[in-house]
Amino acid sequence: MHKQSSNLRKKRKGTKNDLLIDEYVYTGDWKEETHVKLIQYNESTFSVHDLKVQDDPKNYFHKNEVNWVHISGLSDTALIVKMGESLGLHAPDIQDIFTSQHIAKIEPYDDKTILVINTFYFNEAKELQQEHIYMVLGEDYVFSFQESVLPLFDNVVQAIGKNVAKVRSRSADYLFFLLANNVLGNYIDVLATLEDNIEIMEEVVVGGDIPNDFGKRIQANRRDNLQLKKSILPLKDDFKNLLHNENRLIRDENKVYLNDLEDRLLFIIQSIEICRESVDALLDLYFSNNDLRMNEIMKRLTVVATIFIPLTFVVGVWGMNFKFMPELEWKYGYIMAWALMAAIVVFVWWYIKKNRWN
Amino acid sequence: MHKQSSNLRKKRKGTKNDLLIDEYVYTGDWKEETHVKLIQYNESTFSVHDLKVQDDPKNYFHKNEVNWVHISGLSDTALIVKMGESLGLHAPDIQDIFTSQHIAKIEPYDDKTILVINTFYFNEAKELQQEHIYMVLGEDYVFSFQESVLPLFDNVVQAIGKNVAKVRSRSADYLFFLLANNVLGNYIDVLATLEDNIEIMEEVVVGGDIPNDFGKRIQANRRDNLQLKKSILPLKDDFKNLLHNENRLIRDENKVYLNDLEDRLLFIIQSIEICRESVDALLDLYFSNNDLRMNEIMKRLTVVATIFIPLTFVVGVWGMNFKFMPELEWKYGYIMAWALMAAIVVFVWWYIKKNRWN
Amino acid sequence: MHKQSSNLRKKRKGTKNDLLIDEYVYTGDWKEETHVKLIQYNESTFSVHDLKVQDDPKNYFHKNEVNWVHISGLSDTALIVKMGESLGLHAPDIQDIFTSQHIAKIEPYDDKTILVINTFYFNEAKELQQEHIYMVLGEDYVFSFQESVLPLFDNVVQAIGKNVAKVRSRSADYLFFLLANNVLGNYIDVLATLEDNIEIMEEVVVGGDIPNDFGKRIQANRRDNLQLKKSILPLKDDFKNLLHNENRLIRDENKVYLNDLEDRLLFIIQSIEICRESVDALLDLYFSNNDLRMNEIMKRLTVVATIFIPLTFVVGVWGMNFKFMPELEWKYGYIMAWALMAAIVVFVWWYIKKNRWN
Amino acid sequence: MHKQSSNLRKKRKGTKNDLLIDEYVYTGDWKEETHVKLIQYNESTFSVHDLKVQDDPKNYFHKNEVNWVHISGLSDTALIVKMGESLGLHAPDIQDIFTSQHIAKIEPYDDKTILVINTFYFNEAKELQQEHIYMVLGEDYVFSFQESVLPLFDNVVQAIGKNVAKVRSRSADYLFFLLANNVLGNYIDVLATLEDNIEIMEEVVVGGDIPNDFGKRIQANRRDNLQLKKSILPLKDDFKNLLHNENRLIRDENKVYLNDLEDRLLFIIQSIEICRESVDALLDLYFSNNDLRMNEIMKRLTVVATIFIPLTFVVGVWGMNFKFMPELEWKYGYIMAWALMAAIVVFVWWYIKKNRWN
Amino acid sequence: MHKQSSNLRKKRKGTKNDLLIDEYVYTGDWKEETHVKLIQYNESTFSVHDLKVQDDPKNYFHKNEVNWVHISGLSDTALIVKMGESLGLHAPDIQDIFTSQHIAKIEPYDDKTILVINTFYFNEAKELQQEHIYMVLGEDYVFSFQESVLPLFDNVVQAIGKNVAKVRSRSADYLFFLLANNVLGNYIDVLATLEDNIEIMEEVVVGGDIPNDFGKRIQANRRDNLQLKKSILPLKDDFKNLLHNENRLIRDENKVYLNDLEDRLLFIIQSIEICRESVDALLDLYFSNNDLRMNEIMKRLTVVATIFIPLTFVVGVWGMNFKFMPELEWKYGYIMAWALMAAIVVFVWWYIKKNRWN
Repeated sequence: MHKQSSNLRKKRKGTKNDLLIDEYVYTGDWKEETHVKLIQYNESTFSVHDLKVQDDPKNYFHKNEVNWVHISGLSDTALIVKMGESLGLHAPDIQDIFTSQHIAKIEPYDDKTILVINTFYFNEAKELQQEHIYMVLGEDYVFSFQESVLPLFDNVVQAIGKNVAKVRSRSADYLFFLLANNVLGNYIDVLATLEDNIEIMEEVVVGGDIPNDFGKRIQANRRDNLQLKKSILPLKDDFKNLLHNENRLIRDENKVYLNDLEDRLLFIIQSIEICRESVDALLDLYFSNNDLRMNEIMKRLTVVATIFIPLTFVVGVWGMNFKFMPELEWKYGYIMAWALMAAIVVFVWWYIKKNRWN
Repeated sequence: MHKQSSNLRKKRKGTKNDLLIDEYVYTGDWKEETHVKLIQYNESTFSVHDLKVQDDPKNYFHKNEVNWVHISGLSDTALIVKMGESLGLHAPDIQDIFTSQHIAKIEPYDDKTILVINTFYFNEAKELQQEHIYMVLGEDYVFSFQESVLPLFDNVVQAIGKNVAKVRSRSADYLFFLLANNVLGNYIDVLATLEDNIEIMEEVVVGGDIPNDFGKRIQANRRDNLQLKKSILPLKDDFKNLLHNENRLIRDENKVYLNDLEDRLLFIIQSIEICRESVDALLDLYFSNNDLRMNEIMKRLTVVATIFIPLTFVVGVWGMNFKFMPELEWKYGYIMAWALMAAIVVFVWWYIKKNRWN
Repeated sequence: MHKQSSNLRKKRKGTKNDLLIDEYVYTGDWKEETHVKLIQYNESTFSVHDLKVQDDPKNYFHKNEVNWVHISGLSDTALIVKMGESLGLHAPDIQDIFTSQHIAKIEPYDDKTILVINTFYFNEAKELQQEHIYMVLGEDYVFSFQESVLPLFDNVVQAIGKNVAKVRSRSADYLFFLLANNVLGNYIDVLATLEDNIEIMEEVVVGGDIPNDFGKRIQANRRDNLQLKKSILPLKDDFKNLLHNENRLIRDENKVYLNDLEDRLLFIIQSIEICRESVDALLDLYFSNNDLRMNEIMKRLTVVATIFIPLTFVVGVWGMNFKFMPELEWKYGYIMAWALMAAIVVFVWWYIKKNRWN
Repeated sequence: MHKQSSNLRKKRKGTKNDLLIDEYVYTGDWKEETHVKLIQYNESTFSVHDLKVQDDPKNYFHKNEVNWVHISGLSDTALIVKMGESLGLHAPDIQDIFTSQHIAKIEPYDDKTILVINTFYFNEAKELQQEHIYMVLGEDYVFSFQESVLPLFDNVVQAIGKNVAKVRSRSADYLFFLLANNVLGNYIDVLATLEDNIEIMEEVVVGGDIPNDFGKRIQANRRDNLQLKKSILPLKDDFKNLLHNENRLIRDENKVYLNDLEDRLLFIIQSIEICRESVDALLDLYFSNNDLRMNEIMKRLTVVATIFIPLTFVVGVWGMNFKFMPELEWKYGYIMAWALMAAIVVFVWWYIKKNRWN
Repeated sequence: MHKQSSNLRKKRKGTKNDLLIDEYVYTGDWKEETHVKLIQYNESTFSVHDLKVQDDPKNYFHKNEVNWVHISGLSDTALIVKMGESLGLHAPDIQDIFTSQHIAKIEPYDDKTILVINTFYFNEAKELQQEHIYMVLGEDYVFSFQESVLPLFDNVVQAIGKNVAKVRSRSADYLFFLLANNVLGNYIDVLATLEDNIEIMEEVVVGGDIPNDFGKRIQANRRDNLQLKKSILPLKDDFKNLLHNENRLIRDENKVYLNDLEDRLLFIIQSIEICRESVDALLDLYFSNNDLRMNEIMKRLTVVATIFIPLTFVVGVWGMNFKFMPELEWKYGYIMAWALMAAIVVFVWWYIKKNRWN
């Protein structure tokens, strides 16, 4: 909750009205320096360059190649604004690059298509980490912006280098799908962890040895699930639109990959839903186990009390100091007392068993 | 609840049938005098005037400028009705200006577009305050009505003065978006506070030191959330319609800002939803912690009772006054009694541990 | 529940199959005699007549005036059937006039539009009362049927007499809207009462002095809410259709009033929803307070037991009658005993405080 | 649950794959012999015949009359298959006649329209009984199949005989609506009973004398409600389609009756929904009353324990056998003891009252 | 949970990005060798061949026959990839054959239609087993892939051999429906078992002898239900599309069978929904029974305590050692004590009965 709440706060950091932007402000937590990498390839060529931050990457573009500009770290606001303007982005779109808590969306313009999405992973403290990804697909280029400098897309770079699955013979839209697929893959990793945790918690509940922070752990699981859901759900309709509407940037031969991407998206949404219902079921199990345990405790107390309270009364009786209590004088009075008490125990026990109190 | 219930009551204050309006009645709580401010600007000019309340602002309009009339305080009914009629509003629309508990909506007419929305903020008593905002967008003008005289739009006036983000070179529809954006910004502020409160309450629950008014605080949070939801949800479809339908008041070059506004709206609706689910999760946590605490209490009672009740019985036995109780005569009887009691304690303790009663 | 259940039963009273109607049967509870009132007006004229029940009101219609026939009390079945047939209603539509438990709907025919709706008010016993209203809008007339003879529409008659808001210069469709608006106004009154009750109950829960009939009162509130909901919800789509489809009975100049009516309908539906969520929140508050109170009770018991049970054991020990109990002989034995007991109390109290049992 | 579960099992009885039908199998529980009745009528004629089971009813059809074939009891599979084939039904449609657990639907073919629906009634053991009804509407005929030989449609036969509501001058589609209306009427009867039961249970809960089978009765009510819902809900869209699409079997003059039928369907669906919410509310009431009762019980125990446990300690103190216990020697020691104990009782009672423990 | 979670993990086994496929990887648990069976038939011929795994089945196809290739066991990746390529499948589609945790879907291409579905059955350990089925329908062929070598479709092979229901005179699309119908049949079997289990659990709850693993069993039932739901729900829209859109592989004469298949699908979805609501009802029953049982236990404890605690106090009184306790000296003191205690018991019992504590 903390993170999200503070993000809501941060969203407001720059200005009270985000149409009144004098100065673009990055609203996230990462303090990374901005790195710009240019990856260019076609069937026969492949090159990776680190660009100097003051350069406009478009100056380095090659014709007949796919030009992928990957920017990691958003601290160099000026540079990124320059890039955005060189791409022909509107002011609100440029601000979206810096808004780490933005609603996910696909925005298809005539000459480019924008994807805003969050990626998730667990950091070393096993807390769910969210990172804002902004991607622009153009005719022969892809721009991808990420907040951190973590190697989110290194496997894609390597695959291009090795020309895995003939990726180098495909156009920019395919690269765009590859990157989106990578992000969606992270969702599945996170969900797998959430499901593992639910399974572990289930065993804990059934085992009965509930740790004190159990409620907190359920809470955390639900919150993480909620974050995934809010980050992915808005994309459902946008993907459908992208798939079914005309979009001149997406080639017909690559629609099958977009289709595959949509399958993955639906699979994730479904898994989130199931994960959520599993937590609800876990909670019911937990509550019912608490109830059962309570019943057990009270049963024990009742049995102990029902046996000993009458006995204590009985011994109290013969502890009275009346002068004339004939049984106290009997030789076998004491034994008789024990016999009576034994009889009481037997009777109570039989009564309890008969009525299934325990 | 109080406020809202009384508003429902107030909605009925004027007349039993609100189509039978002889006299317009302001149904809100504010008693502020009516102030009328006229802000006019284009790329090169900028002026702010306080109008006398008997004037029709339209007489002061400048061609080739954006004319923004801001009315704060609705007590001067006659004046506002005159303005409404001069704008060509229908009687029900004029009554809507005065109806502080109206459903939010966008009403697109041919020559103007009306936005009815509520704004929210926390007052000094940290209670959620709601205020009814009524805005009319025309060809070259914007009228905005607010109930109080709080400076809700002063930042916009200042920004126009400073020509931030070249706002003065844009048309009236952009101003309309700016004002709506300001209102939506207030929603995000309120939501951030609600989320902070949930976080604080969560820590309280986990900490275990539940204050007596905790239930009330959860209740208040849910109620505030509900109020936000009901005030914003009806706008969802209206925004979509405004964005996708022809509307000659909204210029194509400004649609990107309307789009950005819709993103913000969706973000708010999503945040309300998440805030709500967080409260539900908090409640579950709270209930489960209550259960756990109860279990703890009962366990302790059971342990104390299970240990001492048999002991009390035992000492009662040897407190009996039978004549023939041989063990009472033994030299080591008393020590034996202590030994027996120690044995009972050990056995019961072992039994409890073995069966994990505590 | 009683009323509704009996209405379901009553719905079946007349015949097993309601398409096999030999004889029309009024299925409601009111036993009122049938009164027929004819209100006629245009800009310059206004008259109110009580018609004899055997007359067909259409014979008295004036051209160029709005003719409003208001029938209160449905016991004179024959007359009402005759009116229905004279209006050209189909047999099922005529039966609907008499079916007090009918689903709400708007039925637009070519030459008339039918509105079936329930109105609600609290009777003297503060129980929610439901009444079935049936209205027919034609070219220059409105028929309105109500079950009781309560003055539901008297304010409208008076307003027409006084020509409030120039009502007399408007056409029959405007009158139709006026009457519907009156009915919707009753919903708002009822909702305001329900919300007041929720507020009162909330204070009761927080105060902690729960009366015995509290559960019943929550139940009643939910049931009333449910009845409002089922009576108004089916109209949502019908209103939208009426507003957006061609209907030659509704003049373009009056569409703005229909629009206003739809706003009111949406406001009511929203308020019902909120009222319902408020009751749910109230229930959660109630349950959690019960839990808390239970915890309190058990804590007290546990504290009392934990302090006194060991003490009782201790005094039992020295109540034993062993011959050789050296401490009994000590001069300061008794004081020592008190000292020990005081020590036990102090220790237990400290332990309880330390572990926050209370 | 039993019935339904076994029906699921039975649905699989015939063959593992129901497209691989060698032999049609009736999957229901009724063992009734097959009876075939032919009812024929027009404005001037009316006749009812029991057909021999080997005949094809179509041979007996009269032109210019409505021919209604009613088959009760499905044990004579061969005959019914022959009829189905003579009607031109496809193999899966014929199998549907025999599938007592089929989803409800309306299937409009070019030359006939099929309605699959379940009817419900309470049997003598007051258990909800479900029966599968299959109806075929053709140009001038209606076939109706029912599982049992119960007189489900006898009132319709009688009404045709008496020409109630001029039924004999209407076409086959009207008869089709009549039969469907009869079935829907049974739903309303069942719902009225369910609502009565809820009302009774509500009084039981409020009265506090909960019988042991109360949980079971709520469960049964929910299950019956669920069965109604699943049987009627799938028809909602089908009715809408039938009403709004072209269907040459349904005459325009009879559409108003179809419309009435749809009203009834919507009324039933709404009543099911409300019935369900009433059960939920009842459950909440029940749970909250359980909680309250528990609180009551614990309060009493706590009061009893809090008063007597200290007293028992006190008397234990003076039951100790220390040599030097000066107060034991006092003349007024015993009275003082009683006075002390009375003081303790008064104090505890005051404390309890002050803190509102009971 | 375990299975599913591990499947999510496994889905990621092959590669981090499933568009970057160098090598196809089977992600399921089965280790079966790949078997290829070719079934060919028309009205007059029928043959079954086991193909060698290196052959391309298309080489063996006969014209004018339906060619059904059934592959069981997916370990021979190379072969299956070769088949997929020979069928003209895209790389992502081929990967789907190997992805045992794929979302269910129908993918209609121009010259073939793909169905991805899961089948379910209970294994010997009575655990729900899921198996991924992949089917391709072409002009005159059907390919079906299954993970295990279990005889899922043997009844279809036999039925073709015996020409049941003239299956051999029908085209490939009918075979496709047959196989799908078989899979759906398995859903109904599983649901019948789940419903039986719910019924058994319900009797257990009502009987009151709750086994310790009861919570786990409810949990398992919900999880199984969830798995069925997620596997079948995505097909609902796809079936509707297949039925209503043009598809040249599906002959008009066979649409009635597709329709029947859709009925079955809807029936399954409905049964899943009902099964789920039944579990919820069961849980409520379970919770309420727990509450009742708790109340019972506490009542007993309270009765025992309320009777004996005052008695124990009384005997304690006369166990005190005050010198001057006149009643101790009375001859009938002891009898009087018993009389008093009897009176206390009678009074307490009467009080308890009067106030209905038990």
